[in-house]
This record gives sequence, C-alpha cells and structure tokens, in this order.
Amino acid sequence: MTANRQIVLADLPKGKLSTEHFRLTQTECPAPGEGEVLLKVLYVSLDAANRAWMQGATYRSALQAGDVMAGGALAEVVESKAGNLKAGDLVFADTGWQEYAVLKAKHLAKLPRVEPLTHLISVFGVAGLTAYFGLLECGLPKAGETVAVSAAAGSVGLFVGQIARIKGCRVVGIAGGAAKCQMLKDDFGFDEAVDYKGGNLFKDLKRAAPDGIDVYFDNTGGDILEACLFQMNVGGRIACCGAVSQYDSAAPHGPRGVPGLIVTKRLRLRGFIVSDFADQNDQAMADLQAWTRSGQLKVQEDVLEGLENLPGALIGLLAGENVGKRMVKVA
Amino acid sequence: MTANRQIVLADLPKGKLSTEHFRLTQTECPAPGEGEVLLKVLYVSLDAANRAWMQGATYRSALQAGDVMAGGALAEVVESKAGNLKAGDLVFADTGWQEYAVLKAKHLAKLPRVEPLTHLISVFGVAGLTAYFGLLECGLPKAGETVAVSAAAGSVGLFVGQIARIKGCRVVGIAGGAAKCQMLKDDFGFDEAVDYKGGNLFKDLKRAAPDGIDVYFDNTGGDILEACLFQMNVGGRIACCGAVSQYDSAAPHGPRGVPGLIVTKRLRLRGFIVSDFADQNDQAMADLQAWTRSGQLKVQEDVLEGLENLPGALIGLLAGENVGKRMVKVA
Repeated sequence: MTANRQIVLADLPKGKLSTEHFRLTQTECPAPGEGEVLLKVLYVSLDAANRAWMQGATYRSALQAGDVMAGGALAEVVESKAGNLKAGDLVFADTGWQEYAVLKAKHLAKLPRVEPLTHLISVFGVAGLTAYFGLLECGLPKAGETVAVSAAAGSVGLFVGQIARIKGCRVVGIAGGAAKCQMLKDDFGFDEAVDYKGGNLFKDLKRAAPDGIDVYFDNTGGDILEACLFQMNVGGRIACCGAVSQYDSAAPHGPRGVPGLIVTKRLRLRGFIVSDFADQNDQAMADLQAWTRSGQLKVQEDVLEGLENLPGALIGLLAGENVGKRMVKVA
Repeated sequence: MTANRQIVLADLPKGKLSTEHFRLTQTECPAPGEGEVLLKVLYVSLDAANRAWMQGATYRSALQAGDVMAGGALAEVVESKAGNLKAGDLVFADTGWQEYAVLKAKHLAKLPRVEPLTHLISVFGVAGLTAYFGLLECGLPKAGETVAVSAAAGSVGLFVGQIARIKGCRVVGIAGGAAKCQMLKDDFGFDEAVDYKGGNLFKDLKRAAPDGIDVYFDNTGGDILEACLFQMNVGGRIACCGAVSQYDSAAPHGPRGVPGLIVTKRLRLRGFIVSDFADQNDQAMADLQAWTRSGQLKVQEDVLEGLENLPGALIGLLAGENVGKRMVKVA
C-alpha cells in the first residue's frame, strides 16, 4: 500500500500564520470510486488566497482545524474510474497539500503537456488568467493610459504589468523593497516602480503617476488601495483582485475615500475571481501563449521543493519574499 | 436700480455647519453682457452635495469664504443678450443663493413650463434623473432582485425605491426614524424599511433582506454602506451616489469589508453624477413623465419660503428633517 503524506491545518490562526499551525501526517493512499480519479500531486500552487480561506467563507467555504490544507495543484491521473480522464492525463485541481488525492472527475479538464510543466501553474494557470481577465475585463485599459498594480513583483502582478505594456499603457508597479522595484523596471519593462515600504507612499505614487492613475489593479487593499484612490483620475477603474494586506491580520476598517472619492471621481470598482470569465478562457490562453512565445511576456517562477516545505512557502509568500509565481514541487 | 439680496458663505465650516457660517448681504442687480442672461431665481434646490462643496474640490471647484453660496435653482430669464434664450424662458442653473444672477447662456437649456413648476426641480430635475440613472445604469436591477436604498425618504431615495418597484424589484428603504420608515411602506410602496437610528442596523437589515441585497443605491456611505456590504449577494452592484454621512464631519476611514467583500462577493461599485448620462436624458424624461402621469411615481416635495431661510433649510436637510425634495421659493 502506498503511503500518502499530508499537511493538515492543525489550528486556525488568530493572528499571524506560523508553521505551528500545520502538522505533517501520513495516511494510506485512497482508492477512486465510480466517477472518480486518483491524482498524484506534482506541483502545489501557493496563493495569498490560501490564507484568506482560514479567515472565513470566501468564494469557497472556510477551512476548519483538522482539515488537510486546501490548495490548487498540477496533478497527474494515476488511476481513473471516469470516462473523461485516463491515466497519465494532467489536470489542475484543488487536491490540497498532500501527495495523492481522490477527486470527482466531472469538473476536471485535461490540460495539454507543455514544456516546462510549471507554466500550467504560472502563465497558463490561475495567475496568468487572473492577470489577463482582471486587467482587461475589469480594468478596461486604453492605450496611453496609466495602469498601476500592487504586489507588482508577485505572480499576478508581474503579468498585469507586462500585459498592460503590451496594450500600450504606461505602467507603475508597487512592490516592497528597492530591489524588487529595480527589477520591475530593469527586467519586466515597468515604466515606474514605487516601494511601498519607503515611507512616502502618497508622495512617491504621485511622482510615479504625475498624470494620475486610470486603472488600478489591486492585490493588496489597505494603505496601498487608499493611496491609489487619492491618485485616481476621473472615470478610473479599479480591479479588486485580492486583499493580501489583510489576510494575515484583522482589518479594522477600510480605506479613507470610500465612498467619497468613488463618487466625486466617478470610479468603477469591480471584484472578480478568475472563474467568472471561464467562458473566455480560449481567447485568453491563445493570447497568453502568443505573447509568451514571442517573448513579450516573461514568465518568472519561484519553484521550491518538498511537501514538508509548503507551510514555510506560504508564510514566506505572505511576507512578500517571492518574485513571480511561487509553487512547490511535490513529486 | 433693483436690489439683489444674496447669501454669502462667510466662513468655511470646520465641523458641523451652522447658520453662523452664512451672511445675508445686498448688492445691485447685475446687468448681462454679450452672450449672457439676467436670471430671476424662483426656487433654489437644496442638496446634500451643497455641503460637500465646502469640503474641497469635488466635481466642481471648492467654495471659498466670501463666495455667494453656490446652488442650483429654477430661474426665469429677465433679460437676454444671447440668441438661445429670451425673456420669460425657464432654465435650471447654478445661480447661487441670490435673487438675481447673470450667467453665460451657452450651457443653459430652456425648460418646458410644466404644472407645477416645482416638478422641474424634483422629478424632472436632478433628483429624478439621479435616481433614474444611478439605479438603472449603475445598479442594473433585474425584476425579482432586492434593491436597498439609503436616505430613502430623501429626494433621490424616494424615486429610487419607486422606480425599483416599477421595475419589479423588492425594495428595502433605509431611513432615520420610525415615522419615515412607516411612510415608506404606507405611502410609497416600499416592501420593507429599516430605521438606521434603531441601534440594530446589521440585524434589522438582515431581517429586511433575508435573501440578501442585489443592488444597493448608496446616498450615505459610512456605517450604512458597511452594513449593506456585508449583506450584498455575490455579483451585487452598488451605485455610489453620495456620502451624506460624511459631508458634515471628518470621515476618519472607510467601511470594513473594502476591498475584501468586494473581491469575495465579486461586487461592482460605480460612482456617478447625473451629467455623466446627459446623452440619455430624453429617454429618462419620457419615462419619468409617463410614470408620474400614470401615478406609478409619486412626487413628494418639501417647499420652504424665503431666501433668508436657505441656510436653515440646508442645515435641516443634512440633519435629515425633510421628506422628499427640499427647495426654497425665493420669488
């Protein structure tokens, strides 16, 4: 019998998440029933939203203490009792943090085998699609406009900035630390970068976007959202993608300027998750593939190894230590 | 020479607005130059936005101490030196709080003489059009959905609720005091009403909208916006029309749930002012006229008298003492 190592969420965090909240356990590898597949987890995707799931119900039900930690992963079908998948097929699924998982096959779709496989998690996965739909469908950028994005060196942010450049926009990245900011400009073509840890967020943002911001892609919420609200132009759009500044601590209140600035500047804010646009996936994939092939879109990945390193990988992600899409190779 | 009595904003308010901030003065009636008209002010419209103009630049430049208090009014052309208007024509214009005003005629449009004239300020004026466009263009309500509106007994709110009912929605009004709430249900067809002064806003709102809120028309911001955010359904829309809760005091921060709830519920918020939809005015006026004629839309007006009573009328409006559209008859 094959063993199945798992990471369990031992306790729900009240404040900051730490490795103490997780526990490594081992069970037997489960067997698929009718309509199910047994999946071998290859790469687990690390996402700020993982932390939000511990806070309460979001677009998925809240995690409970004792649950196998939830998370999306690229996985390979080992055994299938469903018509739509066969052994060897690749899928992206919420397997959780474990080596094997049995899932209903009905909602799983076979992915193409691309080289490298990790691109199925980064540019051709949730990160790339989130950037694509959030920017283009919620942000509605026009050539010549100024686009700002927070967590700009993160998995989604790097794609947002580059896609905005492809669309002819001026791009301002907001990231933590001088090194990340330099990299945004030198390696990813951002026009300007603002270090939110620099202590002068309002002033630095104003200098980086002297004509104001037309589209803001918000990954953080909090102080950065507030600063951007004050810098938005009339008729501006805000794509609300996440609130990573608030996942790891209580958020006592929202940003100043809500709703006053929304009214006076006639702003449009739209929250979204990537599956809201599933019917447009084909077009998005075609664009992302073309841009990647042509080199217009650089794919930055941050691949760690070992199931046991997942808790540390998430904690580090929440602290902003990664550049590009973070994932952990499990098998 | 005709005298022109004026109300001047003597001092900019730091905190609560009081009659001390205004001064009644008298000048000579001005004469129109080429391309201008001399207007006699008939009815001055009172609007919560009047107070916002004292806070800083909004969609118009901020008021300064010593300015004639700004405000929109229904006025009659007394003398014209412009081709597009003649003596006796009616216009709606930012005359300010005075008996006579000279304005450039270029941006003024002749209004029809309807009976009663006050309808040009209420249902066929900014209040009616704001309700119409905010609800239908920003709120995008569908029949069967639940629509909530704050300041529901105010000039805009009463129209919002009634138009939502005409469109087949379930309507929850939020207003201050039991008497107003009763009136919303008894006289204006609201399905439910919530007294925000009742001390149980979250619970009362949940009871009034047990299936959640699909469209929220926000006139207030602050605690009411916060409560509605928590009660919104996935895919809900919020029309951001004003922030009257914050005009008369500093707003230290925004509502909890921004942006977290916007993301997880995939909400759309849109700020607007009525002129954003000027190209659709004809259709709006046709609908508003038809509904008023058929009795589906009741027009509630609160008409006070006397230029000297304008400061008190605005202060009372900010305190929520009016029901329906407040205006002051000047001549």
